[in-house]
Amino acid sequence: MNEDFRNAPLELINTKRSQMLGPGKALVEPKVVALVGVSDNPKKLSARPFQFCQQHGFSGKIYIVNPRRKTVIGEPAYPTVMAIPDKVDHAYILLGNSMVEAALDDCILAGVKVVTILADGFAEAGKLGFEKQKRLVKKANKAGIMMIGPNSMGVVNTRKSFVCTTNAAFKTQNLIKGRFAVLSHSGSLIGTLVSRGEVRNIGFSKLVSLGNEAQSCIGTVGLSLIDDTEIDGFILFLETLRNPKRFSKFASEANKRNKPVVAYMLGKSEEGQELSVSHTGALTGDSRAVKAYLKQNYVDEVMSLDALFEAPQLLLQRERMKGRPKHVIVVTTTGGGGAMLVDQLSVRGVLIGELNKSVREYFQKKEIPCGTGKLVDVTLAGAQYHIMKEVISKLMNEPSTGALAIVIGSSAQFNPDLAVKPIIDAVKENVGGAPLIAFPLPSAPKSIAMLKSAGVPVFGGLESCAESIALFLSSSGSCDKISANDDLCVGAVEDAIKNWDLSTRGEVLDEVSSTKIFETLGLRCPKQIFIPDFDEGNVLGLEEIIATAQLSYPLVVKVVSTALPHKSDFGGVVLDVKNFSEFKIAVSRLYSSICKAVPKKRIEGILIQEMQFGLGEAIVGIRLDNLVGPVVAVGAGGLLAEIYKDVSIRPAPVSTDIARNMIAEVRGFEIFRGYRGRPAGDLNALAELISKISKLSRVSGIAEAEVNPVMVKSDGVVLLDGLIRINSGKSLLNKPR
Amino acid sequence: MNEDFRNAPLELINTKRSQMLGPGKALVEPKVVALVGVSDNPKKLSARPFQFCQQHGFSGKIYIVNPRRKTVIGEPAYPTVMAIPDKVDHAYILLGNSMVEAALDDCILAGVKVVTILADGFAEAGKLGFEKQKRLVKKANKAGIMMIGPNSMGVVNTRKSFVCTTNAAFKTQNLIKGRFAVLSHSGSLIGTLVSRGEVRNIGFSKLVSLGNEAQSCIGTVGLSLIDDTEIDGFILFLETLRNPKRFSKFASEANKRNKPVVAYMLGKSEEGQELSVSHTGALTGDSRAVKAYLKQNYVDEVMSLDALFEAPQLLLQRERMKGRPKHVIVVTTTGGGGAMLVDQLSVRGVLIGELNKSVREYFQKKEIPCGTGKLVDVTLAGAQYHIMKEVISKLMNEPSTGALAIVIGSSAQFNPDLAVKPIIDAVKENVGGAPLIAFPLPSAPKSIAMLKSAGVPVFGGLESCAESIALFLSSSGSCDKISANDDLCVGAVEDAIKNWDLSTRGEVLDEVSSTKIFETLGLRCPKQIFIPDFDEGNVLGLEEIIATAQLSYPLVVKVVSTALPHKSDFGGVVLDVKNFSEFKIAVSRLYSSICKAVPKKRIEGILIQEMQFGLGEAIVGIRLDNLVGPVVAVGAGGLLAEIYKDVSIRPAPVSTDIARNMIAEVRGFEIFRGYRGRPAGDLNALAELISKISKLSRVSGIAEAEVNPVMVKSDGVVLLDGLIRINSGKSLLNKPR
Repeated sequence: MNEDFRNAPLELINTKRSQMLGPGKALVEPKVVALVGVSDNPKKLSARPFQFCQQHGFSGKIYIVNPRRKTVIGEPAYPTVMAIPDKVDHAYILLGNSMVEAALDDCILAGVKVVTILADGFAEAGKLGFEKQKRLVKKANKAGIMMIGPNSMGVVNTRKSFVCTTNAAFKTQNLIKGRFAVLSHSGSLIGTLVSRGEVRNIGFSKLVSLGNEAQSCIGTVGLSLIDDTEIDGFILFLETLRNPKRFSKFASEANKRNKPVVAYMLGKSEEGQELSVSHTGALTGDSRAVKAYLKQNYVDEVMSLDALFEAPQLLLQRERMKGRPKHVIVVTTTGGGGAMLVDQLSVRGVLIGELNKSVREYFQKKEIPCGTGKLVDVTLAGAQYHIMKEVISKLMNEPSTGALAIVIGSSAQFNPDLAVKPIIDAVKENVGGAPLIAFPLPSAPKSIAMLKSAGVPVFGGLESCAESIALFLSSSGSCDKISANDDLCVGAVEDAIKNWDLSTRGEVLDEVSSTKIFETLGLRCPKQIFIPDFDEGNVLGLEEIIATAQLSYPLVVKVVSTALPHKSDFGGVVLDVKNFSEFKIAVSRLYSSICKAVPKKRIEGILIQEMQFGLGEAIVGIRLDNLVGPVVAVGAGGLLAEIYKDVSIRPAPVSTDIARNMIAEVRGFEIFRGYRGRPAGDLNALAELISKISKLSRVSGIAEAEVNPVMVKSDGVVLLDGLIRINSGKSLLNKPR
Repeated sequence: MNEDFRNAPLELINTKRSQMLGPGKALVEPKVVALVGVSDNPKKLSARPFQFCQQHGFSGKIYIVNPRRKTVIGEPAYPTVMAIPDKVDHAYILLGNSMVEAALDDCILAGVKVVTILADGFAEAGKLGFEKQKRLVKKANKAGIMMIGPNSMGVVNTRKSFVCTTNAAFKTQNLIKGRFAVLSHSGSLIGTLVSRGEVRNIGFSKLVSLGNEAQSCIGTVGLSLIDDTEIDGFILFLETLRNPKRFSKFASEANKRNKPVVAYMLGKSEEGQELSVSHTGALTGDSRAVKAYLKQNYVDEVMSLDALFEAPQLLLQRERMKGRPKHVIVVTTTGGGGAMLVDQLSVRGVLIGELNKSVREYFQKKEIPCGTGKLVDVTLAGAQYHIMKEVISKLMNEPSTGALAIVIGSSAQFNPDLAVKPIIDAVKENVGGAPLIAFPLPSAPKSIAMLKSAGVPVFGGLESCAESIALFLSSSGSCDKISANDDLCVGAVEDAIKNWDLSTRGEVLDEVSSTKIFETLGLRCPKQIFIPDFDEGNVLGLEEIIATAQLSYPLVVKVVSTALPHKSDFGGVVLDVKNFSEFKIAVSRLYSSICKAVPKKRIEGILIQEMQFGLGEAIVGIRLDNLVGPVVAVGAGGLLAEIYKDVSIRPAPVSTDIARNMIAEVRGFEIFRGYRGRPAGDLNALAELISKISKLSRVSGIAEAEVNPVMVKSDGVVLLDGLIRINSGKSLLNKPR
């Protein structure tokens, strides 16, 4: 055996699953388990997996390994895994950091298929730990076994009562068997989810604590469980993204099977990002890039913890929205509570549906109150079985209804038959109707249980309910397809880069060379001439050169120097030069400012461009994000992108369709959309430019590129300035991670 | 008796409270209660107040009024309140809309002190209902009684078991006696709070459902309870603000007594605002104005429902932050969970405290792990009584500690003694130390109960915990003091307005008249001349006029017409006129554009100004908000205020100090703060201008004013254009509501 599950193709993992106890099966459905390093003290952490498996009734065989004793907590102990008289599927190493490697060797010798490791002190603890971790991975890969952790609190399969975890929350007497799998970097979170889920009558199918995911990452483990018929979808708690390609593959396979993937990701703030680094030795990325990456990979990212376990039930019903308007009609018996949900939905940009005329008339004829505006308030008078059932049935059967949310008042708590039964009956009798969401205002565990058993998505938290509905109504992402042999002249660009002498000229291409590359992509640049090694004393000769080049005034004069990529900040650009006498003044002003900032010999010449006039400016760039790889960003021009963080980001490259979506997200681009009677900007041309620039991420050698500004006109866009940073032969996409 | 409690002075209400059964006492501690209109059917809504009072053991006397029966649900019934052989303190009218007025008459005749009304169909139901409601108020005022509702689900005093409500949630067997009073526009919400609070072991002292607050508003009821020793603070659920002056008075009196006021306000979205209108016939205002109003009145506004009942316990400890840095140190045994809280705090702008060198060394010496960055992660190894107690005690006693948040892992659920005891003991032993907040990751009702009994603020919701800490660390507002006889020449401004002929010239002052008023305030305007009744054929004569007025080129030429307040949109302004020949072209261009938009006779003349150059522009305006009254707004100039909604709002008038805070909130003003090496703008001068403009809200006759743009220079600000809208003698402040 010599396979690396981290990078194993999906086919392999699936084949293995179909065999008895391939890695997916051995991970969550082992027949024989070894617990390595269980203490004889039943209060110690290491005793928990055994105790929990016993408590919940695991039917497989468990062997305890402890070389120091004959028996441990009343069970026979074996000195090594090798000594176990049985073929072990899954071993959980509960030993301290220093003993892990030897235990792994033992497992490998014994032919164990999956090894999970509890100890910390590896990659997250600095260089030494990182080296230790690398050795573990190497050994696991060589042996072709699946390794979970280190820093893993274990693996749980509620349906097989395999509760192989050190997390104290699994002491619960009521381990609910749900249909979603939890994959979490954090071990404590699997307990948090089980405990908080229980209160809302929500359980899980499998739970895996991945810790440092040194070898098997979220993507790999997800793929190994992708066809599990006991799993309807995945719940992820992410501290980082260690293997985005594998993750993308997993997410896309889940999407193909209509299995929603819902994620809560740490690092919503910069401080949170710093923490992921110190906590599990992970890298951090730009949270906006990660957000865009997740969305593009069909992952529903949630912002609130409750939504992580409450949203999945609703997202399973996404198909029922097909052909329906993307809005939600809110029905309630209690105005204040209903208004609260409408408010929280609207804050999240959800469209609230209103009753159409015929429905309103129907209710009026039946003397059912239904409010006047955006809230269908049947009032306390309408809190009766037949009225609620009538209203819900009618609305479920209207094709003009998007989704339907019912806010249940105080009776949800003590009169579930009254408040909940009409909902359940209406849903039962109107299969194929509009999807329905229930939200009881009070804490109402009985009602929640009744609704859940009837398959009605029900929420305990107001914000979680609003957030889940917002996700439900938003499209579930779309993986952007860019053909590999697109219209981009990769070869020509690569040639241009090869000619750049990195050693003497640094890694930032000057404007002239950058412009050439942008022109190779078919982008429009202003008519311009470059005067290399220009002697400022010899300005007069330029009059003829400008005339010969047929440049029309007004002109822009710029200094060219790789030492000054941000030349505007140093007075290196003079705009609106109206004639040759202004030109002379401009040149002398340029040199006097610039020579304060940079030695004259570093000035490579001056660039003379025709001045461009348009409707406004944009910025477009590509760069490498630590987590998700190459990304493309577009922002409003001037100071807006920076001051207002008015930027849209996507994993690069992007199609022009995705580029159009990006443009729609930039608020500053309002001025190009006919704002206050202004002429409209050519945003199609801008989308094409974004797509083309984004494809530079595929060119070997380009590390970063920025076009700033792009002038947006009513017919087309013109690139006014741009820079490309190259590195030694590594493209953005090929950067090792 | 002839008093109106809606506007009664505080002294009166307090005097009455000190008498036995003044309105505050009769409201929440009546000795004798009448329930008017109880049905004999025990399942009907109207039977609930009686049932709840019995269930919870109300010791006062309850009389039931029902003219149709001798007995009702087994109790003797009286035909009228008048017929009751006892002095009734508080009557709850449970009858339908059409019978309410007669019942109120009955109560008044019987000398009842407080009348609460359940029925809906009043102001929220249109004109007829509004008229009905007005009659009730008139009668209640004339009789000098306190009226709650209509549309009120009643009044509850948990400590006296006075559970006089129709809300089903009060059927609970476990009505917790808390120390905060709930005042809610929505009746269903008092049940929601009781029910959701119960799960977190949080109870309330008094709960009042105010409904339409036709007579007694939140402010009045709050004032009547302000000195109640069983009330530590107030929890408000607001759908609108009906009487801001009264509300301000209440909030400021609560603040004086260190009683926090926490509010959840509907209308966080425009849709939510529309709903408050349809739901209780309320007005809506600009949500940003309301937010600023609440903050300025010491009210802590929360965005999440959980925080509404979880934040108060923490806010009570605000005094303990005195002299401490405004940060929170997060301590945890579980990295993932701790990081989640840090992340949610940082998203809300909370500063995370780090260990200082000496503390870090102290822990290292004791071999206690404490992480490296922003999270004090003692790891699972540190999850022991003596370690946790040591860490908490040490940090509580450091003067460099701000607040301290402890994230408790899974052991909170099944081992509260282990996880919770060290916290409780450390808090007990270190009185006067840094305030401490506990957050158990799992659902852990036992731990929550233990911590709460020990007086430790503890949170069940992650987001609610983060939001509450953010509120706790923010300053609690500051009522702006503007002296009445400030430097503003109110008289001069009023005179200027009086000269404006409303009937012929409309309510918008032209630029020339507006400018004069702004100059009266001492604001700087460009040097300018106005040419009235200007004949475009007679341009030549102007050359001399411009010279005589000593205006220097470049100039700005503007058309003056009250018919065109937004003249720029119609080509009514020409900038950068460099000499007289350009001037002639400008004037002809002006007239040709303008004459398309407005008849020539409506053009009052042209205004010629010296062109101003500066660092950027701002917009300042005052207007009347429906809810909070006059407000002043400042925004970034150009399109920024509109596109990015980059505007700061406060109730007007404001001092220059508050104006400076407003300026700090406008992101676009970055460019005046030395952005990228630019010269700094004179933001002190801008603050003075904002304060002066804001004082126009006190001038009788001014309905609205806007200065757009203000040019910000490095020395001073110049007002380039401005408009004032007047109305018939009513100032912003005097507008009736």
